[in-house]
Amino acid sequence: MPGLPEIQVGDDLAEMIHAQCVAAGTDLVDGDVVIVTSKIVSKAEGAIIELDDIVPSPFAASWSEAWEKDPRVVEVVLRESRRIVRQLGPVLITETHHGFVCANSGVDQSSSGAHDRIVVLPKDPDASARRMRARFNDLGANVAVLISDTFGRPWREGQTDICVGLAGMHPMRSYIGEVDPHGHEFKVQELCVVDEVTAAAELVKGNTSRIPVAVVSGVDFTFDDDATMAPVLRDISRDLFR
Amino acid sequence: MPGLPEIQVGDDLAEMIHAQCVAAGTDLVDGDVVIVTSKIVSKAEGAIIELDDIVPSPFAASWSEAWEKDPRVVEVVLRESRRIVRQLGPVLITETHHGFVCANSGVDQSSSGAHDRIVVLPKDPDASARRMRARFNDLGANVAVLISDTFGRPWREGQTDICVGLAGMHPMRSYIGEVDPHGHEFKVQELCVVDEVTAAAELVKGNTSRIPVAVVSGVDFTFDDDATMAPVLRDISRDLFR
Repeated sequence: MPGLPEIQVGDDLAEMIHAQCVAAGTDLVDGDVVIVTSKIVSKAEGAIIELDDIVPSPFAASWSEAWEKDPRVVEVVLRESRRIVRQLGPVLITETHHGFVCANSGVDQSSSGAHDRIVVLPKDPDASARRMRARFNDLGANVAVLISDTFGRPWREGQTDICVGLAGMHPMRSYIGEVDPHGHEFKVQELCVVDEVTAAAELVKGNTSRIPVAVVSGVDFTFDDDATMAPVLRDISRDLFR
Repeated sequence: MPGLPEIQVGDDLAEMIHAQCVAAGTDLVDGDVVIVTSKIVSKAEGAIIELDDIVPSPFAASWSEAWEKDPRVVEVVLRESRRIVRQLGPVLITETHHGFVCANSGVDQSSSGAHDRIVVLPKDPDASARRMRARFNDLGANVAVLISDTFGRPWREGQTDICVGLAGMHPMRSYIGEVDPHGHEFKVQELCVVDEVTAAAELVKGNTSRIPVAVVSGVDFTFDDDATMAPVLRDISRDLFR
């Protein structure tokens, strides 16, 4: 979905996306999935930090000096985290307050509109998605909303887009208890469909092309008004890599 | 792409997929990406282990007893691995000979056609993909081929389909050195597009529905005859979770 203007604090994203779809002659229809890059959600919600307001802690200052980083940015990364998962050389993998494990707490310096500002993840991405979904409903379209971000992963190079917030769509499609054509019962098969949909959406959004929204039609899912990211966030007691 | 029969050792998968596309009136066209579930590649190549032929090592036998597993299956998992990455309770995360880190070396018990047989990953999935791509070319379609499997991941519940072998398509789309609309240069942004395409394909394949092949049209990529999975496999020296 090309054509969105630069997003400002207070913008009504759902209304802008809806209008853009209408203008393009591709109206949203019930059952569509709207994938929105977290960056523009953060911008609309004002999840932007003025670096001039940040006083780095001694820990942030000394580590930044060792690795030639901006200590104010490092300070923000630390504030956005509840735990450091790995810190080696210049790499900082943290667990955010939401429970996401990622590089630099998902803090994004690339597109803040000015280099003395940085964009952080939305405070409650599920709530952001729910608000957008309600707004789309007001405008006549019963859609699911996924908020995406670009994360790295262990063991494999390259990033992929994954889901950080959702509304209207259960994140998983479970096969547990179902039986395959050979009579073998699935014991662990549960697909994280929201991560698959956000990955698919990245293919048409791209990262420099400034297309922060994609609409995917025809996804086989059942609406779930109470859906949240909670089933995706692995509890630390079940995690061998944290 | 529904309609493929049960795959047998020696089957010419590319020919069967091509014929199925023609029969369905959706001929493959240049630039399509054909995503094939590794399981049927393994079956066609005979990457199937008869459990009666397997003598478990003492290590496999004792661990299997502790966790009520079939010691022959555990033995195969160990043989398919070059290293155990994590072993805790009944969970075994290994690094395969190809360099994939996953549960149980990607060994699949669910659909082998009989319960005394198990399917292992193709020996050289890039080579499998290259052979299929060459065959599609013979049949008149210049397509990329991706071989997919369903893997779990740390930190997040649920699995997604990822790429384990490829031909014709570079696995990454790099933004490094490019500049965003605000003049900020991308330093690390490199998207693993093959994992995003296989994830997208899973949405229409499903796991119990026995649709092992999907075709994705319109992916923005440049053909690369020399492409392999190598750029995706993170070297252990750059990995904080191995």
